[in-house]
Amino acid sequence: MSSIPAGVNPPLRILMGPGPSDVHPRVLAALARPTVGHLDPYYLQLMDQMQGMLRQVFRTQNELTFAVSGTGSAGQEATVMNLVEPGDAVVVGVNGVFGGRLAEMARRAGAEVTCVKRPWGEVFAADDFKDALASAQPKVVALVLAETSTGAWQPIEEISQLVHDAGAMLLVDAVTALGGIPVEVDRWNIDAVYAGTQKCLSCPPGLAPVSFSARAVKTIMNRKTKVHSWYLDVSLLASYWGEDRVYHHTAPINMTYALHEALRLVLEEGLDECFARHKLHHEALAAGLDALNIPYTAEPECRLPQLNAVRVPDGIHDARLRRRLLEEFGIEIGGGLGDFQGKVWRIGLMGHAARSKNVLLLLGALEQLLAEEGYLFDHGASIAAANQRWSQAGQ
Amino acid sequence: MSSIPAGVNPPLRILMGPGPSDVHPRVLAALARPTVGHLDPYYLQLMDQMQGMLRQVFRTQNELTFAVSGTGSAGQEATVMNLVEPGDAVVVGVNGVFGGRLAEMARRAGAEVTCVKRPWGEVFAADDFKDALASAQPKVVALVLAETSTGAWQPIEEISQLVHDAGAMLLVDAVTALGGIPVEVDRWNIDAVYAGTQKCLSCPPGLAPVSFSARAVKTIMNRKTKVHSWYLDVSLLASYWGEDRVYHHTAPINMTYALHEALRLVLEEGLDECFARHKLHHEALAAGLDALNIPYTAEPECRLPQLNAVRVPDGIHDARLRRRLLEEFGIEIGGGLGDFQGKVWRIGLMGHAARSKNVLLLLGALEQLLAEEGYLFDHGASIAAANQRWSQAGQ
Repeated sequence: MSSIPAGVNPPLRILMGPGPSDVHPRVLAALARPTVGHLDPYYLQLMDQMQGMLRQVFRTQNELTFAVSGTGSAGQEATVMNLVEPGDAVVVGVNGVFGGRLAEMARRAGAEVTCVKRPWGEVFAADDFKDALASAQPKVVALVLAETSTGAWQPIEEISQLVHDAGAMLLVDAVTALGGIPVEVDRWNIDAVYAGTQKCLSCPPGLAPVSFSARAVKTIMNRKTKVHSWYLDVSLLASYWGEDRVYHHTAPINMTYALHEALRLVLEEGLDECFARHKLHHEALAAGLDALNIPYTAEPECRLPQLNAVRVPDGIHDARLRRRLLEEFGIEIGGGLGDFQGKVWRIGLMGHAARSKNVLLLLGALEQLLAEEGYLFDHGASIAAANQRWSQAGQ
Repeated sequence: MSSIPAGVNPPLRILMGPGPSDVHPRVLAALARPTVGHLDPYYLQLMDQMQGMLRQVFRTQNELTFAVSGTGSAGQEATVMNLVEPGDAVVVGVNGVFGGRLAEMARRAGAEVTCVKRPWGEVFAADDFKDALASAQPKVVALVLAETSTGAWQPIEEISQLVHDAGAMLLVDAVTALGGIPVEVDRWNIDAVYAGTQKCLSCPPGLAPVSFSARAVKTIMNRKTKVHSWYLDVSLLASYWGEDRVYHHTAPINMTYALHEALRLVLEEGLDECFARHKLHHEALAAGLDALNIPYTAEPECRLPQLNAVRVPDGIHDARLRRRLLEEFGIEIGGGLGDFQGKVWRIGLMGHAARSKNVLLLLGALEQLLAEEGYLFDHGASIAAANQRWSQAGQ
């Protein structure tokens, strides 16, 4: 006999983890609009509009700017697989989980990978890449702009200069960056970039915005070997996203609706205003956490506003406190990955979640739970500190 | 200055092409439920439930049954890439576009591919594979149960016997099949199968249900080389879908809501009842098309009920008529792919679209447009023929 579970009826969460983040109600409404065909004239027009908006958000003129039909990791793999052929030398900056994954994907694509490493929570200086560039003579250098596992904000511009001086292309992970901090694809001379929808774009997971420079496109179109993945082969995808509209695979129609609306929201607010909002609420949260004596893992000069990675206070049981936050307050924050498991909390202030009410609620909930768990701090101090930051900003 | 397009406001279509098909309103409503985290206890429970429902729909006990985070083609690539290692011999049955794509994906995975061919619109007899099995000694034989490009319904059971007698594994494309015709994974001894959500499951595109036999899992877990794709590596995905819930990538939460509801609808109706509904309305449509002297491309004994591939009548301009159907009646039907381009229409009766009202509307619209385009037929005859078929069924 068939067994049929009850229908989908999710609890209401406040998503302040490393993603997915809170989805804007307008995005959820767009998601549920009636499905049309993937070659419908209306849908083709939406694709054009979405490409135009993605170019604005990526701050690029790159023609080949579109969304991969998979989550952020699919976009990551699409950029790596298409730029890399077997035997190519690739240099990867690894200072967290996602740099490590870039290296793994490049290896699977057949690359000879050189990892340049920094401790988790730190960022790279341009000098860190000098030796590897000289010895490996890489085709591609890959690094992470916003490392979701550590909350570290990697400066790109100076490294990009060095990478291009060495004749290599620059591949950048902007999954957690896009919409939260500047991603200056053209100004920084990035050759391939990928992002996700479920972080600072306030959209559910399911698509991966990507963009390729003219040089990257030329490299892809002149490959000697076929990309291992047919699904992620950019030379084929370009024909569907280009003027010819050659059928490749059936596009995720409704997710495209959602991303279209999410991009409209970001552009309505204004990119710079959006970054400023993330920064302000991050500073309020940081002031509150400081009042609770909860330190960040990253140094102040390289902290991502949208991803606050902080040390779990001594004596506090990581998983239990996060479970209580979820069950008693409906707040999701993230645990640590890899080396940081059990030791770090990752508090997201991404997209629609980056609001003062969420900061206040989280600080209030943390004060209540930490007190119950026996952690000592000045009661009310975190709320006061956050409020002071907003007051300074006139909000 | 930023340029912001108008919000998503799609026209109302009746989706009777080769997919996506009409999405059930309950599925659209589920899609827009509030997003939770991909490791939220509620979401993990939904995943378990979805796996249970997928097993029922695939008619399998296979533990490794889940949904790949991409469209049907991603599921296709996941099955091929994981079963095949470089140098492996693979035999593929090619009698349409999607068999050809299986061969292409196997080649990209490094396989030595032997194609067994039949003309488009025909199906394979078990005997067709004997020589290739003997000469190639393949590890995997791949073929398409429901060939979306031709509307041909491939019998599986006898070929499966032959394939397994030769020591090979059987990989089956069930993208257009699942929910429309039986997909008997266990009874037919299928080792790997993939499907899509946007055909007979009445769900938007974006996920790919897959299932792997114990033998396939053992083969995957004992690979000598890593799968080229990290995103589609089943050995990693199994740890997220299994008891350990090891983070791999951020799952497409809302699409999972939609598929969950779509599977509930199929199981509420009953699988056999669902197949009978597709068959009945297909027969009514076929009677109507016969009255219009529009012939099928596939022989009567191998016609898919859910995908009716028919010849464009002489003197009728394919693209113009399809555009008029779309613009004047809101009905989408599909054109031909590859060899069939310009010559064939593909009329889908898939999932929620497989209803008598759609058959009537399409036949009525075709009568009107074909008459205007100068095609000769007995007016009203197609409607009468369809109604007669429903009357025989007591409906």
